[in-house]
Formats: sequence, C-alpha cells, structure tokens
Amino acid sequence: MARTAPVNRIGLLTGGGDCPGLNAVIRAVTKDAIGHGIEVVGIEDGYLGLIENRTRLLSHDDVSNILTAGGTILGSSNKANPERFAVGKNQDGTPKFQDMTDLCMRNIEMQGLDALVVVGGDGTMTGSQVFIKRGVNCIGVPKTIDNDLHGTDLTFGFLTAVQIATDALDRVHTTAASHHRVMVVEVMGRNSGWIALHSGVAAGADIILLPEIPFDPDIVARVCQQRSRRGKRFTIICAAEGAKPAGGKIVIERTDPTSPDPIRLGGVSRLVASMIEQKTGLESRYVVLGHVQRGGTPVAADRVLATSFGDYAMDLLLGAKKNRMVAYQGGQYTDVALVEAAGKQRTVPHDHPLMAAARSVGTSFADRE
Amino acid sequence: MARTAPVNRIGLLTGGGDCPGLNAVIRAVTKDAIGHGIEVVGIEDGYLGLIENRTRLLSHDDVSNILTAGGTILGSSNKANPERFAVGKNQDGTPKFQDMTDLCMRNIEMQGLDALVVVGGDGTMTGSQVFIKRGVNCIGVPKTIDNDLHGTDLTFGFLTAVQIATDALDRVHTTAASHHRVMVVEVMGRNSGWIALHSGVAAGADIILLPEIPFDPDIVARVCQQRSRRGKRFTIICAAEGAKPAGGKIVIERTDPTSPDPIRLGGVSRLVASMIEQKTGLESRYVVLGHVQRGGTPVAADRVLATSFGDYAMDLLLGAKKNRMVAYQGGQYTDVALVEAAGKQRTVPHDHPLMAAARSVGTSFADRE
Amino acid sequence: MARTAPVNRIGLLTGGGDCPGLNAVIRAVTKDAIGHGIEVVGIEDGYLGLIENRTRLLSHDDVSNILTAGGTILGSSNKANPERFAVGKNQDGTPKFQDMTDLCMRNIEMQGLDALVVVGGDGTMTGSQVFIKRGVNCIGVPKTIDNDLHGTDLTFGFLTAVQIATDALDRVHTTAASHHRVMVVEVMGRNSGWIALHSGVAAGADIILLPEIPFDPDIVARVCQQRSRRGKRFTIICAAEGAKPAGGKIVIERTDPTSPDPIRLGGVSRLVASMIEQKTGLESRYVVLGHVQRGGTPVAADRVLATSFGDYAMDLLLGAKKNRMVAYQGGQYTDVALVEAAGKQRTVPHDHPLMAAARSVGTSFADRE
Amino acid sequence: MARTAPVNRIGLLTGGGDCPGLNAVIRAVTKDAIGHGIEVVGIEDGYLGLIENRTRLLSHDDVSNILTAGGTILGSSNKANPERFAVGKNQDGTPKFQDMTDLCMRNIEMQGLDALVVVGGDGTMTGSQVFIKRGVNCIGVPKTIDNDLHGTDLTFGFLTAVQIATDALDRVHTTAASHHRVMVVEVMGRNSGWIALHSGVAAGADIILLPEIPFDPDIVARVCQQRSRRGKRFTIICAAEGAKPAGGKIVIERTDPTSPDPIRLGGVSRLVASMIEQKTGLESRYVVLGHVQRGGTPVAADRVLATSFGDYAMDLLLGAKKNRMVAYQGGQYTDVALVEAAGKQRTVPHDHPLMAAARSVGTSFADRE
Repeated sequence: MARTAPVNRIGLLTGGGDCPGLNAVIRAVTKDAIGHGIEVVGIEDGYLGLIENRTRLLSHDDVSNILTAGGTILGSSNKANPERFAVGKNQDGTPKFQDMTDLCMRNIEMQGLDALVVVGGDGTMTGSQVFIKRGVNCIGVPKTIDNDLHGTDLTFGFLTAVQIATDALDRVHTTAASHHRVMVVEVMGRNSGWIALHSGVAAGADIILLPEIPFDPDIVARVCQQRSRRGKRFTIICAAEGAKPAGGKIVIERTDPTSPDPIRLGGVSRLVASMIEQKTGLESRYVVLGHVQRGGTPVAADRVLATSFGDYAMDLLLGAKKNRMVAYQGGQYTDVALVEAAGKQRTVPHDHPLMAAARSVGTSFADRE
Repeated sequence: MARTAPVNRIGLLTGGGDCPGLNAVIRAVTKDAIGHGIEVVGIEDGYLGLIENRTRLLSHDDVSNILTAGGTILGSSNKANPERFAVGKNQDGTPKFQDMTDLCMRNIEMQGLDALVVVGGDGTMTGSQVFIKRGVNCIGVPKTIDNDLHGTDLTFGFLTAVQIATDALDRVHTTAASHHRVMVVEVMGRNSGWIALHSGVAAGADIILLPEIPFDPDIVARVCQQRSRRGKRFTIICAAEGAKPAGGKIVIERTDPTSPDPIRLGGVSRLVASMIEQKTGLESRYVVLGHVQRGGTPVAADRVLATSFGDYAMDLLLGAKKNRMVAYQGGQYTDVALVEAAGKQRTVPHDHPLMAAARSVGTSFADRE
Repeated sequence: MARTAPVNRIGLLTGGGDCPGLNAVIRAVTKDAIGHGIEVVGIEDGYLGLIENRTRLLSHDDVSNILTAGGTILGSSNKANPERFAVGKNQDGTPKFQDMTDLCMRNIEMQGLDALVVVGGDGTMTGSQVFIKRGVNCIGVPKTIDNDLHGTDLTFGFLTAVQIATDALDRVHTTAASHHRVMVVEVMGRNSGWIALHSGVAAGADIILLPEIPFDPDIVARVCQQRSRRGKRFTIICAAEGAKPAGGKIVIERTDPTSPDPIRLGGVSRLVASMIEQKTGLESRYVVLGHVQRGGTPVAADRVLATSFGDYAMDLLLGAKKNRMVAYQGGQYTDVALVEAAGKQRTVPHDHPLMAAARSVGTSFADRE
Repeated sequence: MARTAPVNRIGLLTGGGDCPGLNAVIRAVTKDAIGHGIEVVGIEDGYLGLIENRTRLLSHDDVSNILTAGGTILGSSNKANPERFAVGKNQDGTPKFQDMTDLCMRNIEMQGLDALVVVGGDGTMTGSQVFIKRGVNCIGVPKTIDNDLHGTDLTFGFLTAVQIATDALDRVHTTAASHHRVMVVEVMGRNSGWIALHSGVAAGADIILLPEIPFDPDIVARVCQQRSRRGKRFTIICAAEGAKPAGGKIVIERTDPTSPDPIRLGGVSRLVASMIEQKTGLESRYVVLGHVQRGGTPVAADRVLATSFGDYAMDLLLGAKKNRMVAYQGGQYTDVALVEAAGKQRTVPHDHPLMAAARSVGTSFADRE
C-alpha cells in the first residue's frame, strides 16, 4: 500500500490533561502511517519530550492492544510551553522562563521530522504556533474533556466524561431519594458547561449550573423548597466546577465564629450545598467527581471519534495539507486552520437547543423562574 | 407557562422492537406537554392499544424516575398494522387480516385526540400513513437500534447498542488472545451494518462483515491465516447478523454425514466460524449477542438524544406543524415529512469515512485484499 | 403455602445511611412473608415513621421491579433515635430531646405488629433495644457499606462500594501514569478500612491507608520517591476517610501566610496530597469519592446476599426465634443475638490475610519499611 | 526481604479455559516470589509450553499493569494432557496419542524448576498428577468460571461471570416487559448450576433451570401461563447450558415438515423457548451468552480472591508444603491435597440455602409446583 508520500517521517505528541481516546488517536495515526510507509516518532510527555529530545520510534506492536486503554502511552505534560519554559527561579523567587524553540527545532531536524502531529487542547494548539512560524508543518488533533475547543463541534473524551458523570448522578439519585436530601454533584468544566449540561440532562438533574449562566442562589434555594413542598423527596443539582452566582458571591452567614470561613470552603458544590442548608433547612450534600472523569477506557463513541480523527490527520498529511486541525462540524469530518483553534473557546450559547429541551422537562438553570 | 396551544390533548404510542431511550422520549413529551397545558393519553402496546382502546392519561408522576429505565412503560408491539391486522386464520390455515382503521379512528375521536405522537421505526411510521390520510396529525419520533431509518443521521438506542456490542467484543478479545482463537461476534443489523461498523471500529476488530458489503469467505480465511503467520495469536471478527457471502453461499464440506446440515446451522457467525475452522484449521468460536443489545438503561448520549427528540416533537406540535418526523441531520435537530421516512432504509455507503478509517488501521471487510 | 405462623403481621423498616441492597431485602422479606400469609407493614423513613405513624401495607406489586434499584423504597433516616428524639431546641440553643418510646409502642400496638424487622447498621440495631425491652420481637438484618458491623463477616452494600471504588481507582490510574503523578483516592471508612483494603488490593494501589494502621507521613513520601527513582511514573494511594497519621498530625509548612490553614483543609486525601508535594516535589492530586459509593444498583453478589438475608430473617420469624440478627459467618448464614451487634465495631485486624497478601505484592501501609 | 527459601526457581503455568483473574494470580505469584528472591519461569500455553519448552523468565515489569486485564499473559491451552498428547492421526483416522511425561521432566530439569505452580481447573489439576508421581512439587491454584471445583467453596472468575450474566438478564428484562414475552437466557454451567443460580437470584429470574435439578417442561410452561394470567407481562428464565428436562427429552411437535428437526436445534435455551411457544402460545425468545462470560476485566472481588490465592500459593511453597491446592473454605484461605481436587466436581446440592431463598421469593426450579 506504500506510495510516495509528501512525508516520510513524522513526530507525534500528546499534550495537556489526560483524556480517554488519546491512545486511540496514537494507534490510528501510527497504523495508518506505517501502512503508507511513513515512520512515526513518538515524542514523550508532550512538548517536554521535544525539548529534552526524548523520543522513540513507534511500531505496530507498540500500538497493539492500546485502543481500550485510558491515558496516553506517550505521556503528557500540561506545563511545557516551548517558548516560555520554566527553568528554575529568579533571585526574587519568581519563576524563570527560557525560550526553547531553537532547541526544539534542532531536535526536529536531528530526528528528520517532516511534520508534527500534535494531539491536545487549546494550550497544545497554541504551543504549535511557534513551530509553524519556523516552517514546520503541524497537524492538530483536537482533544478536550470539556468539549470547548474552538473550531470543532465535538472532541473525543467528552462523551466518556459525560457518561461517567451521568453514572455518578444516577448513583447519587437513589441516595438523595432515600434520605430526602439535596445532592450537589460537581462535574468538570471550568469555563464551559458542556459536561454539566449533557450529564445533567442525561441524568434528569433538577437544577443545572453552568459557567455561562450565572445562577441566582435564591432561585436555587426556591426550586429545592418548592420541590420539597410538592412532595418530592429530593433535588439533584449538577454543577459545573466553573459555575458562578450572579453578582459573583454566595453569602453564607457564619453562625459559628470558629468554623472555617465559607469563602475559603472552595468548590462551588460545597458552597451551594451550604447555602441551601442555611436558606431552606433541607439536608444537603455534595460530591466532587474530579479526576475520575478524565481517566479509564473510552466509551465506544469516543473510540470511533478518536480513530476517525487520527485517520483524518493522516489524510491531511498525505494530501499535503499544512497547519490544519482536524475537526467535526455539522456531522462531518473536516479541517480548519490550526491557528483558528488556538486561544479561543467554545462555550454553551444561552439559546442552545439542549438548554431549551432541559427547560421543557422542568430543569432549572437558576437564572429565572 | 400554559398558553393556547394548537392542541389540547394528544395520543402517544411506542411501536416496534425494544430500544433504550423510549422512556426518555415518553418522559420528555409528557413533561413538556403538561407544562403547556396539554393532556397526554398514553396508548398501550403501540397500534394494538389504539385498536383495543387501551389507554391511560399520563401524569408527571407516571414519567418520574423512568429516564434511566430500558423498555417502554407504554408497552410495544411489532405486529399490529392497523390496516392489516391479524384476526385469526382462514379455513386454509393462512392468517386472516382485517382493516381496523375505522375502529382506530373512532377511538381517536372518542379520546378527543388532536394529534398522535408515534415513536417507532419504519413499520410504525408506515402504520401512521392511514391516519394521516384520514386527517389525523401524526408526529413521528424515529427509533431504531440499527440506525437505518431514512431521513435522520442518528436514532436513539443505536449508541447504546454499539456500547453493549463493544463491551462484549472487548471481553471476547481477551479470551481469543489467551487461546489463539478466531472469535466471531454477531451483532444486530439485518439490513444495515451500522452497529457492526461502529462497534467493530470501537473494539478494534480485525474483520468486519456488513450486509452492504458481500464478503469473500476465502479472504476471511486468508486474513485469519496471515495474522496467525505474523505471530498474532487471534483474530476478532465482528459480523452483522445480515452479513452475506459474495455469491450468497458459504460452502462447508460435510465430513461427518450424521452432523447437521451446515446450511441449516443458521446464523452467519456460526457459519463463518465453521468455515474458518475447515479452511484454516484455526480454532474458531462464535457468540450471538442478540436481545442483550436492545434492553437496559440507555447510555448518556442516547438519553440526551431521546429527550431532545421528545422536546422537538412537542415544538412541532406547538408550532402547528403537521405530519412531520423529528430528525437529526448534519449535527442539528430538524424535521422531515413523515411519509419520507416510511418504507425506506439508510444503509452504509461503500465509501463511508468510517470504513476508510477502519481500513486505515488494518481492518478488513473481506471484500478485497 | 400459607400455614399457621407465629406471626401474622410484621413491621419492616430501613434505617441509617443509604446502601445498595436495601430494596432486595425489602423485596425478599415481603415476598416470603406474603407467601406464608403474613402481612408486611412498611414503616417509612426508619424509626421516624414509627414515631410519626407513617406506614403502608406492602403488596407483591410494591416490591416488583425494585431488586435492581439503589436506595430504599421505604426511605430512611439516620437521625431518629426513639429514646432520644430531637424535638427542637432548649432556651440555651442546645438541642432538646424527648423519649418517644411510648408513642412508638402505641403505634406498634395500633398497627397490630407481632414483630419488627429492622434493616440497618449499628445505630438501627441499638435503636431496637428499647423495643426488645418492652417485649417486641425484633429481627435485625445487618447493613453497612463499611462492612464493620460486629457479628457478621459480610454485609450487603460493601461489595458494591468496593466495586465502585475499584472502578474509580482504575480510571485514576491511567491519568496518574500519563502525567507522572501521585493520585490519592479517598474512599469510605471512618472507623474501619475494609473498603480501602479491598479496593486498594483490587486496583493494585501502591499505598493503602487505613484507620486501623496509623501511617507515617515520611514513609508515604519515601515510597512515592522510591517509585519515582525506580522509573515508575506514578503512585496510587487508596486512603480510607478515617486514616490517621501516627502521632495524629501531618505537618505542612505554610510557605504562603495568606493560604488557608492546612489543618483546616479537611479530608485526609487533601492533606496527604499536599504533604507529598511539599516533601517530594512530585505533582499530587486527590479525589474524594463520597456518596457515589453508597448509591445505585447493587452488584450481583450484594443482591444475592441481601435476598438471602431477607429470606433468613423470615426463617427466624417462622421459627419463632426472638431478637436475633441475621449474620454471615464462616461462609454460612447464621444468626446472633441482636444485642451483640449493637454498639460494637469490627475493624481490620493488623494480621488480616489480605493485608499480608497486599504486602506480598509490594503494597505499603506506610506503617513500616 | 530475601531469605533462604525452600525453592529458588519455580515454573508457573495457566491451563484450561479463559477466566477473569488469571493475570492477577500470575502477578501475585511473580511479585511475591521475586520479593523472596525466587525466580519465576512463565510457561506458555499451559502444559503445551512444558512439552515444547516455551518459557520466559518473568520480571516485575512483565506483571505490571496486568491486574485489570482479562485473559492470561502466559496463554493457555485446554487440550494438552502431558500423558496423552495428540500427535496426529492413526492410519484409521483416529487421533494418535503419545506420552510426553519424559520430555516434560527433561524440560523441568533443564529449566532448574524446584516446583510447579499450576493455575487451572479439574483438567489442569489432573494433569499435574504425573509430575507429582515423578517427584515434582506441584502447587495448585483453583480456577473455574463454573465454581464447581472440588475442595474449594469459591474460585476466581465465578463472581465476574455471575455479574456479566446478571447484567445481561437485567437488560433482557426490560425487553421482555415491553413486549409481553418469555425470555430464556442461557448461561454457562455444563455440569453445575452455580452461575445460573446466583445470576438468576441476582436478577430476579422467574424460573431457574439447573443441571442438578431436571426440570419438568410442563411446569415451565405452566409458570409462564400463570404469570400471564395474573397480569404479569413477561417471564424471565435463566437456564444453565447443562440444564436437562426430567426424562431427558423435550417434545416439540413438528408442524412444518420442512423446518429443522427440533432435536437438532441445539442449546437448551432454544429448545425451551420453542417448547413454551408451542405449549402456551406466548411469544418466546432466547439468548446464549457464551464466551462473553469468560473474558474481560475481573470484578473487584475476583481480583482480591485471585491475588490472595497467588499469595497463599507462595506461602505454601515458602512453608515447604508439597502437592497442595490453595482453597477457600468456610470464609478462610486454606489448602487441600492437590489430588483431592482432581477428577471430582462440586455441584449444587438440592437443599442449598440459596435455592431455598430463591423459592421464597417465588422463583421456580420447574421441579415441583
């Protein structure tokens, strides 16, 4: 199947936070490349491996049996920015940065890489810009748990995170119902509420709190109270970690002066649970799902998406496309300029159909009554 | 929230085979309708309940706690065609049919239904045509495990079936690898191979057999043999139940004249496993997943899709749209004429991007080498 | 099957925290009782329903379809002690208690209950003592997530909690490995470490911290460091919420005087993660699983155990046994005096075989090197 | 930790069918052995690797990350009996056997093995007898999906198989309920019904069919009919593959002379479903779970059991015990003479408490009314 390809040897790295499906991309790119007679150099720990020249040639065997595995066999790093790499501290204690671009370029040349495939989120795409400027062809494969990368409707890992969050909400549901409780489940999403919106709808949450829709604590409390009065024994709240109250603050009276300062309590779910207890007297609990959402085997749909992304990235390289990012838009695989995805974010629009659907089944976003 | 609606009372029924997400649609339609002051009459067991006038008014409580449940609280039937309803047998033993349309129309009028929401597949959509002709507004919500309904890119239940099939393939994988075996896993898909294609890619199957791509038994055997020679200890085959050999026949020599006739063995997976053993001497086993793929709690993505479909169906009714089917096309919710979906099927095109992606990671469709 | 039973009508209640398998017990007791012509009065929300006389007769239909459901259809309460029931506050703000035993006894008589089946943990068993003293036959069914009830080797819910914790540890594992991190996962177990021990062994945790084995923070840090030096990219720590450092304190230097007081940080996992970062410089993260461990559908083994417990409880009643608690000891179902289980706890002995097995595969309890 | 051990170098093999937990045993034995300065020689594909001298030294790294993986990294074979090894065919076409014991003994000596740890079921334990007779110390670790090995109450893999079967029964349940159907689910258990009994109880099956309790087809049909008459829309039957009708035969009338011979239909579930349709007219379907039950990641309890078994096996070796099999009896780890486990089977006794519990919740074994 091998034919004259515009590339003979490519570098492949995964950057940013862990995300189910990374290995599926690595496998697809590697198998596809080898099938076309192209060598794949795996770069360890994202851009860090490029700086430190830690790489290894990937063979068929290296990518066998990794499709179902969480994490990334190449390792990742979410700190290594080639242009601004922390190399210790200045005398005044502030971190000291150094530009590692030249070093990276030397390593790219020494390795004989005709192109870089960078799998990652906003930070990883941004990090590639400096190499693009120096003439290295960079092909991006979008990856965010949060699904908020600009330029693509969907990123792998997202549906797995939504499934994990939904499973947790389902479990918490029964406890809430048995104990007449308000349960607040905090899911990932610092700047965007896609996971909270999807898992909240999937699990039938009564209230969903999104970073994009500042919530009114009084409405949160009122919804809980009204449910309680209508005989509902519980309320389930699905809160994105970045959800914020309108006005920016939740006021919790400190009845006990020795208790910790509420504003130090940290975590929106803890604040919301405390606030509800104080305003309504209803017993409230919270759970922060955290890293459990990022790891482990990807759901089937994410494996399909990640494999397709990897294949499409190779298509771009074989088609001699330059500096593009693979994307999924309008139900189709496509590509956008890599520069477009860097530094921008895709948040939940206030009129998103799924918000309307959620409202229609009685879910409140605590933004209005 | 109640306002003057073009409809005051609607009938809701689920038809055809079981499918995860049916209850999510029932819940969404009912909650949304009640929120708009519309009554929802649940019709039991599909069109059968319309014929036999078995219905019940659905309340908020009826649809509480059903979002996560498989099956349908309304029951279903995949036999009741109102126009051609089996009512016993003729004297010569052939089944006797009767047109029940008049009876159904009387029940629709007696119940005071302004519209019917029919949730189902091809058969259910087709079944509604007779009521449309009589002036009943029918809104369709598409449902097929197989994802092969014309007019929509995606139907709920499909992603759950794919996940279940993928989980099974993952499990079978370890057994195959431990025992140097060929394992054939037969998944749903009589006329279309969407489940086989998606779960096969998700689980990294070595061979995928689709109804749309007649397979060459010799190629199947050769792929298994080549893998074995390259030191691979196993081969995983994901076969749609409707997969067919090119030429229409698998020849298996009957070495033992008392053994059952191979053409009577039934099930493509059994045939393929027997054929491989005979042609290659490699130990082969098969599993038929069957009904396990249709039941149980839907994956998160299917709950989101089903809820959105239910909400969109109500939007159509509230917008005074007539005889439309909810659809998902190009990543967006939309609607098509209900008549369009009836009697047609959406199969896997030979140049589907996912087939290309599968080939690029080394998967064979046994159609060519 | 009905025969003259020593009892004609029994009360059934579930007390204490949520636990997968409660509904399986309710179903088994109810079906078994009805089969013997005995009426079952379901008491709502534990002893609270007995105080407030909130009950309902349970039928076959009430317990259909609940075997797989988490929570308890009867509701529960972990606050209602009949002898010492909070009824508001005294003038000085302290809570005011009242003895509700007489009221409960009147309700028991009014309901015509010949016996009480109480499903719960230590608190629920203790709560039953006052009724035993007044001559009410109480049969206990042991329930604790933590598996630390005295008198039985195993309680339902425990294996489900272990499975959930193991799944979470598996997921977190891949993230830790991809990012060269120490991950601390905090599981349930305030006073006993059974969940931490079992899930830690099941998931191959490198360090397990138990309430019963005070840990040496220096050893924790050293294990992480040694693994890092041996080239292991990560360390997984499974910590029971009640795990305590030897000497009772983890010292974390406050480098930043405006940062929150470490001793206020709360949660052993947070403390341990902070401590490791400070002592070793290794990036550390923590996850607190919390309520997710208590809810949702029970694993198969818990459904079997809960059903068997329910059946055995009925055997005790039919055999005219009095004031016994069902138990599982030495691989067999048996019973112990209910009073024995009250107020005592079963903790992990230092020489438990599973601790030895854990040490033999290299797991550290951070108690010695 | 290394000390003078009675053994310096051991052989480790896994035999028989695939079973979740094999890798956990391999990991525990290897880590424990290395910790005591003992070398572990992994023998590939069970006794076959001993015959063909295919082995490899196992290191810490080889057993890292395998705890959660199904299958066995050593491979297995369920055909290789050292004393009677198939080496082709005689002139009359019958298989030709040869005694490979001498060859195996030479390989054992050449490898310098002081003992063999054999992980397997009845066949593997029986296979070791010939080496015991020749003076090789063999330590057995019991393994059967079916849980029917003599000498131990529990074997790893069983609880995973029960969980998988229970999940499938749960899924099928909703389909049965939606369609008014009888669903027969065939689970593993050729000679013993442990999986059927446990999963049947866990999933609330209405009828459970065991190899140990010949069933009366008329009672099966009657139970389905009675449920239908009482308004129950479905019946769930959990059948062990080895379940047999009393009298040994199910009579199914051949109404259509061209249809396949029922006695050739094969599979008890298919027969039972056909029989019910014919006797009652109720729509019936069947599912054969097959190999899905043997593969994939073990449940937490099986990982704990397998790790403990591996550790205990090493304890036996370190304690200079000879020719023992690890066992779990009465809730405790113990050991029995290896010869005791060979060639005997542990079946479900007719008065097993779980059968009584199942009957008490209304489950029928179709043996009596």
